[in-house]
Amino acid sequence: MAYFNLNGKKAYYEVHGESDRTLVILNGIMMSTSSWLPFIPMLKRTAQVVLVDFFDQGKSEYMTENYTQAIQVELVEALLDALDLQQVTLLGISYGGEVAMKCRSSRVSQLILANTTAHTDQTLTAIGDSWVYAAETFDGSVFFKATIPPIYSKGFYNDRIEWLNDREKQFKKAFKPEWYQGFIRLVRSAESHDERKKLSEIQMPVLIISAEEDVITPPQCQNDLNASISDSKLVIIKHCGHAAMYEKPTEFFSLVVGFMLCGQDQFTL
Amino acid sequence: MAYFNLNGKKAYYEVHGESDRTLVILNGIMMSTSSWLPFIPMLKRTAQVVLVDFFDQGKSEYMTENYTQAIQVELVEALLDALDLQQVTLLGISYGGEVAMKCRSSRVSQLILANTTAHTDQTLTAIGDSWVYAAETFDGSVFFKATIPPIYSKGFYNDRIEWLNDREKQFKKAFKPEWYQGFIRLVRSAESHDERKKLSEIQMPVLIISAEEDVITPPQCQNDLNASISDSKLVIIKHCGHAAMYEKPTEFFSLVVGFMLCGQDQFTL
Amino acid sequence: MAYFNLNGKKAYYEVHGESDRTLVILNGIMMSTSSWLPFIPMLKRTAQVVLVDFFDQGKSEYMTENYTQAIQVELVEALLDALDLQQVTLLGISYGGEVAMKCRSSRVSQLILANTTAHTDQTLTAIGDSWVYAAETFDGSVFFKATIPPIYSKGFYNDRIEWLNDREKQFKKAFKPEWYQGFIRLVRSAESHDERKKLSEIQMPVLIISAEEDVITPPQCQNDLNASISDSKLVIIKHCGHAAMYEKPTEFFSLVVGFMLCGQDQFTL
Amino acid sequence: MAYFNLNGKKAYYEVHGESDRTLVILNGIMMSTSSWLPFIPMLKRTAQVVLVDFFDQGKSEYMTENYTQAIQVELVEALLDALDLQQVTLLGISYGGEVAMKCRSSRVSQLILANTTAHTDQTLTAIGDSWVYAAETFDGSVFFKATIPPIYSKGFYNDRIEWLNDREKQFKKAFKPEWYQGFIRLVRSAESHDERKKLSEIQMPVLIISAEEDVITPPQCQNDLNASISDSKLVIIKHCGHAAMYEKPTEFFSLVVGFMLCGQDQFTL
Repeated sequence: MAYFNLNGKKAYYEVHGESDRTLVILNGIMMSTSSWLPFIPMLKRTAQVVLVDFFDQGKSEYMTENYTQAIQVELVEALLDALDLQQVTLLGISYGGEVAMKCRSSRVSQLILANTTAHTDQTLTAIGDSWVYAAETFDGSVFFKATIPPIYSKGFYNDRIEWLNDREKQFKKAFKPEWYQGFIRLVRSAESHDERKKLSEIQMPVLIISAEEDVITPPQCQNDLNASISDSKLVIIKHCGHAAMYEKPTEFFSLVVGFMLCGQDQFTL
Repeated sequence: MAYFNLNGKKAYYEVHGESDRTLVILNGIMMSTSSWLPFIPMLKRTAQVVLVDFFDQGKSEYMTENYTQAIQVELVEALLDALDLQQVTLLGISYGGEVAMKCRSSRVSQLILANTTAHTDQTLTAIGDSWVYAAETFDGSVFFKATIPPIYSKGFYNDRIEWLNDREKQFKKAFKPEWYQGFIRLVRSAESHDERKKLSEIQMPVLIISAEEDVITPPQCQNDLNASISDSKLVIIKHCGHAAMYEKPTEFFSLVVGFMLCGQDQFTL
Repeated sequence: MAYFNLNGKKAYYEVHGESDRTLVILNGIMMSTSSWLPFIPMLKRTAQVVLVDFFDQGKSEYMTENYTQAIQVELVEALLDALDLQQVTLLGISYGGEVAMKCRSSRVSQLILANTTAHTDQTLTAIGDSWVYAAETFDGSVFFKATIPPIYSKGFYNDRIEWLNDREKQFKKAFKPEWYQGFIRLVRSAESHDERKKLSEIQMPVLIISAEEDVITPPQCQNDLNASISDSKLVIIKHCGHAAMYEKPTEFFSLVVGFMLCGQDQFTL
Repeated sequence: MAYFNLNGKKAYYEVHGESDRTLVILNGIMMSTSSWLPFIPMLKRTAQVVLVDFFDQGKSEYMTENYTQAIQVELVEALLDALDLQQVTLLGISYGGEVAMKCRSSRVSQLILANTTAHTDQTLTAIGDSWVYAAETFDGSVFFKATIPPIYSKGFYNDRIEWLNDREKQFKKAFKPEWYQGFIRLVRSAESHDERKKLSEIQMPVLIISAEEDVITPPQCQNDLNASISDSKLVIIKHCGHAAMYEKPTEFFSLVVGFMLCGQDQFTL
């Protein structure tokens, strides 16, 4: 609903609701602000929700050169400043989690890292390469088959095959060459992601959400995050793939909303 | 803070806070209302909290004869009626979860079943027998060593050994013969627990919480519950044993509070 | 080293060693008889080893029309007859396991099913589609990136990246259009695979090998097989992906060789 | 069938079969040489099998003072010398695995560590304490209920309840006070077990067997062993508890026999 300017580039964001709690959500690589709309009515009951499209995503400006995730981190920190947000819960899934773990803004007081990883390893690089090959065809079916099946669990994919076939048709219509080129740059921007040695800098409470059947960033990745972050909590959603907020929204958002409300409490047993 | 009468027996309960949401909590077998006190300040921010001691537990009346869990179910349903509670979230852990899944009161609109099981199988019967043997010694150290190590994860037990050694000393002082006899009857009352064929009757939303390293009611038990209940959600707390609310309070109560707030939402994707 | 004729089509097979035990090995979809050569010296110490290329694989005849796995089952059964083999241990991995579980030859007395599944579900169909798209480019790099990263575990892929980069170069040289067309037909032949209702017919001892990090046919697939076969044993190789015989050869072949030697024993405890 | 003398103490051992391969088996704490007899006919086909009772076990001499596992290590090394064994595969389960991983005899060329751990942590110490309390009753039923249910998986315990009830009756008859006192000393001898810093000294090939539902030495223990030993292989037996050789003999001994035959091979891929 609004744009702000960063270094001459337009970035799109949305603010939903009013509350003394603020939840800022960072998208996965194939998502956009609109991906979260089904959940806004529920989330608004607990917090003000801020959505944002990364550069090369949704309604934010498309780039022309390659870059690293540093520009997305800058975007998020600039947005927090622009809106003068305080005591923010910052939630990032997948690519958004990689950006979230790099934010060092003192405006953030809680972090939720969902289905994400501390670094882009060789497997993830190769997955990225295969997605780039598929994107370079500019063919929605090829792209869909290369990218979508691995982001859902087998159970979901089998149960929801008609919905997924519909999505495949939408893909064919929806995406323009510009979108695919943006997607390719986003993939490339994550290739150098390696935050492993800096995770010890994170001092705030962190909730890590893992999905049992995630094959893009498998539970081992979140286990490694959990071992490296000093004040982290790790929970696994059962029978769930990488796109956890679609597959298991109640489980996913119960964790998010609950952690916003209880994550700062200290208990003396 | 109050008692009510059921069939001539006194039952103790506590009501904390005021809210249009109500959370009723049912204890595990070795717990009592006081076990939840560290979490009340946090929970009160979201819901009115009702605690209750089962018969043979805490400040409720001690029995003299054996019985089944049916009397505890009756106690819970009578309490819901006595307080005229509506739209209740009923949370039960372990023994409390076994009772919770048997409640059919229309006053309950959400169920949270934590580290519990649909039936007392041969292994659980044998664990119960070994606990009874230990209780019959009326010796706090013997009882502690037989019952406490298996309810925590290895990680917690190793990290918190001093706290646990203190607890062992408290056990020696705290428990009177009457307590041990009540404990033995509670164990016996769970022996006939078998709700497997009735789980399909549960129509409300159910959150199932599992603890990865629970060896009393291992994750397979919650997996089985999840497969038998029509509208259930299953989440696993990582690196956590049976006494999950003590080992991982933030994870445990984030799920509880989040599910109270989001568990009824339907999402159209 | 030899060919035999089935319905006018040539099929290639190899026989290694002499022994009163016989191990017949069925390839995965991207493999051929030559894939097993590094293991022959070791296997020959325990058994005569028979390797065979499926139609559209290695040195067997390439087809021109589509078909189902039934022709591969016929090929295997015909080979067992042609060589007059008795008391055979039949080992199949992935596609080879799908064929193996359909063999009903009385010449087979033990089955070893490795990293395979009872049916081609929607996820596996979609993976197949994405592989077909990649194959249709006839571009070794595109094909490699689409098919190879998911068949290894993250640990192996990261540790062996140089070896894998070499393999990618070999792919570019090795595969001719004919090979890719054969590969596509092999994928298509597996689409109708659904043996779920017939697994109860298998009466012989069956060893099921699962790889913890297999994302093509994840452990749940082998769990399902194990639940449906009356006399089956299930073992999981830790930190291992789909191509288990390459990633963890000692673990894989210890199981194979050990089961050949002990799988028929009955123990009275 | 034979005794040998170590520092004036008699130790009992058995040698079964003749072969150029030798398998030496070390018992778990509640076992004895006779525990392995059902498997000897099968094992003899592949290897000469040497069984031995630790001090305070079976037919070996009972001690009068406390000691550490060092005397059992000395016993094993002395036996290897006395029999002049070469190129031995040394298999130890649980307590026997703890002893096996401490042997540094050059007569051993392969190690198989089953359901064992690198050190006695606080949980294991507490389990030991609870077993000691039960043993001190000299009551077979109390001892059985304290020690036996946790060593089997739920599935096995439920399926084999009649066999287990029979075993309980045998326990009541079989064990004399002397046995219980020996058992208590064996428990105490393991309390100081901590080999974590010395595992890097082990240079030979090591197979680590893990049982999915082992609650005494859970899979995490074998995972830790695997991470600390340079040339180790880790395999998990599914649906199996601590007493793996009884619950899943085919899986257990397939691994043992297979590793004896293939564990030294190097493969060039």
